[in-house]
Amino acid sequence: MTSAGALDRLLDATRPGMDRVNAMILERASSHVELVPEVARYLIDSGGKRLRPMLTIAAAMLFGKANGSEVNFAAAVEFMHNATLLHDDVVDESDMRRGRAAARMKWGNQASVLVGDFLLGQAFMMMVDTGNIAALKVIAEAATIIAEGEVLQLAKTRDLSASAADYDEVIGAKTAKLFEAATEVGAMAGGADAVGREALHRYGRELGFAFQLVDDVLDYRGEAGTLGKNTGDDLREGKMTLPVILALQQATPAEREIIAKTLGSVDAGEAQLKQVVAIFERYDTLGRTIEQAFTHAHRAREALKPLPPGEMKALLGDIAEFTVARAY
Amino acid sequence: MTSAGALDRLLDATRPGMDRVNAMILERASSHVELVPEVARYLIDSGGKRLRPMLTIAAAMLFGKANGSEVNFAAAVEFMHNATLLHDDVVDESDMRRGRAAARMKWGNQASVLVGDFLLGQAFMMMVDTGNIAALKVIAEAATIIAEGEVLQLAKTRDLSASAADYDEVIGAKTAKLFEAATEVGAMAGGADAVGREALHRYGRELGFAFQLVDDVLDYRGEAGTLGKNTGDDLREGKMTLPVILALQQATPAEREIIAKTLGSVDAGEAQLKQVVAIFERYDTLGRTIEQAFTHAHRAREALKPLPPGEMKALLGDIAEFTVARAY
Repeated sequence: MTSAGALDRLLDATRPGMDRVNAMILERASSHVELVPEVARYLIDSGGKRLRPMLTIAAAMLFGKANGSEVNFAAAVEFMHNATLLHDDVVDESDMRRGRAAARMKWGNQASVLVGDFLLGQAFMMMVDTGNIAALKVIAEAATIIAEGEVLQLAKTRDLSASAADYDEVIGAKTAKLFEAATEVGAMAGGADAVGREALHRYGRELGFAFQLVDDVLDYRGEAGTLGKNTGDDLREGKMTLPVILALQQATPAEREIIAKTLGSVDAGEAQLKQVVAIFERYDTLGRTIEQAFTHAHRAREALKPLPPGEMKALLGDIAEFTVARAY
Repeated sequence: MTSAGALDRLLDATRPGMDRVNAMILERASSHVELVPEVARYLIDSGGKRLRPMLTIAAAMLFGKANGSEVNFAAAVEFMHNATLLHDDVVDESDMRRGRAAARMKWGNQASVLVGDFLLGQAFMMMVDTGNIAALKVIAEAATIIAEGEVLQLAKTRDLSASAADYDEVIGAKTAKLFEAATEVGAMAGGADAVGREALHRYGRELGFAFQLVDDVLDYRGEAGTLGKNTGDDLREGKMTLPVILALQQATPAEREIIAKTLGSVDAGEAQLKQVVAIFERYDTLGRTIEQAFTHAHRAREALKPLPPGEMKALLGDIAEFTVARAY
């Protein structure tokens, strides 16, 4: 079975739950202030895979005692994700998102900041409506740590001394934290015991690491926007992702010079970008980044080991591999 | 007794509670990511009056059964307020805040957006820690409505057809909502019954209206920064506050032209500003705005009527008048 098949199977398996999630997303993105749904829906309808809320629904199904609160949790997770994207685009001054103009290019930074805040507020409202204070704690903590991770990433911008450990800390916070929260609150909604909750917490965390590592590779490989962004954007934005960090560790002074010149240079052209990617190839830093993604995907599958066998468990294991297979 | 005296009396009366609030604020603004406390404390320590958290503490004291959760609620309210200020400065492209450079001028828009998100996350964490889901609902709803109000204000920027009703909707959401939540959750922490909770809800709401109306007058009156911002900033930012709306209702075509030309003109100089203020004076729109503030302050005092007499009740009534007395 191909890994791409795994995503289709997840879509099928979570469809009834996701129909309710999508209805809730539509309802909660509405407002009598017209600009709110205009901006929110532009992003929400832009063809994201909704992987995170699907994982919440799947995690709840895994434990068989889902009580409906997983729908709120899933929609809340997707709203938090979209709020982060709106704010990220402002922070990164990105022009594109998911293959089209970023919201901020159409409505300005102002609307992106404020509609992001609105979505964050609605995410909490949906959580509050379940009355589940333990799940709220998971989500509130995630919101805080995600922001902290984004600040750390900002602080490390163009920092040539950034280490692989710094990178792990950044993506552990800005990406893995939401995946981890998504699957953990799903397990809670599904009636998981402490072992089940911990298993899904670890599964989501490892999956998130694998996902971001692959994203950071795709940023350099994308043929005109596999991610719907411009190839090399991370480099132009001065982001210290693992492929850059690994390259700097081995680079000659001349190579280091080339990388340093390109990092954070918004105007870096194709030729300059190619020079940097050639250095990455010399030290196989994209390949080594994917290798790390594989390790995390493997750990994600391992995290589910304590759980009884079943179709959904197998599917979640396959999803971990799908996450990495995107790199090819 | 002067109204300025009322603020001092509130400071005295809430001191033990506010000592705990201030300690919690300091603790929760910390992070191992150094840039977070750097930006957060710059704003937090910049000499705001902390009126909102004081109101939360006072509201809790009013009902005599405070259980300590009011400290979390108060700190959460202050964090939400500061998060809003950080985001507002980005939205408004403000240079100054509380009499010194806005955080975004020192650390950039990026840090302001992200540290704002961090403070919002921490606000929810502090609420979650109390386990009070009903209070969480009040706060989450407030967060959503505040953002909605800010979006509405943005949508109405430089809209010459904006009405007094539009203005009421904007300030009811962006300002009054947080005052209302601050006093309502305070009452809840203090063990208020439904009548008490409703009274403090209404009190906070009316107080918030009075507060913002006066702020919008001071924006035109400030002698080199009574508010710590530049005089006339609202006009330069194209904000449709009541003094402008009332003026446009009566202005001659020539006067209308002058106002329209200045609204949203970042480079508007002293002379141009004076022309607009002269029009305001012609129609007494600053005076009429203050009159409305008085009406709301009066209603705030009235809202407390159902409660038994007492020192704190009298003090909160005086605080309503202090809010308006700032205009002089």
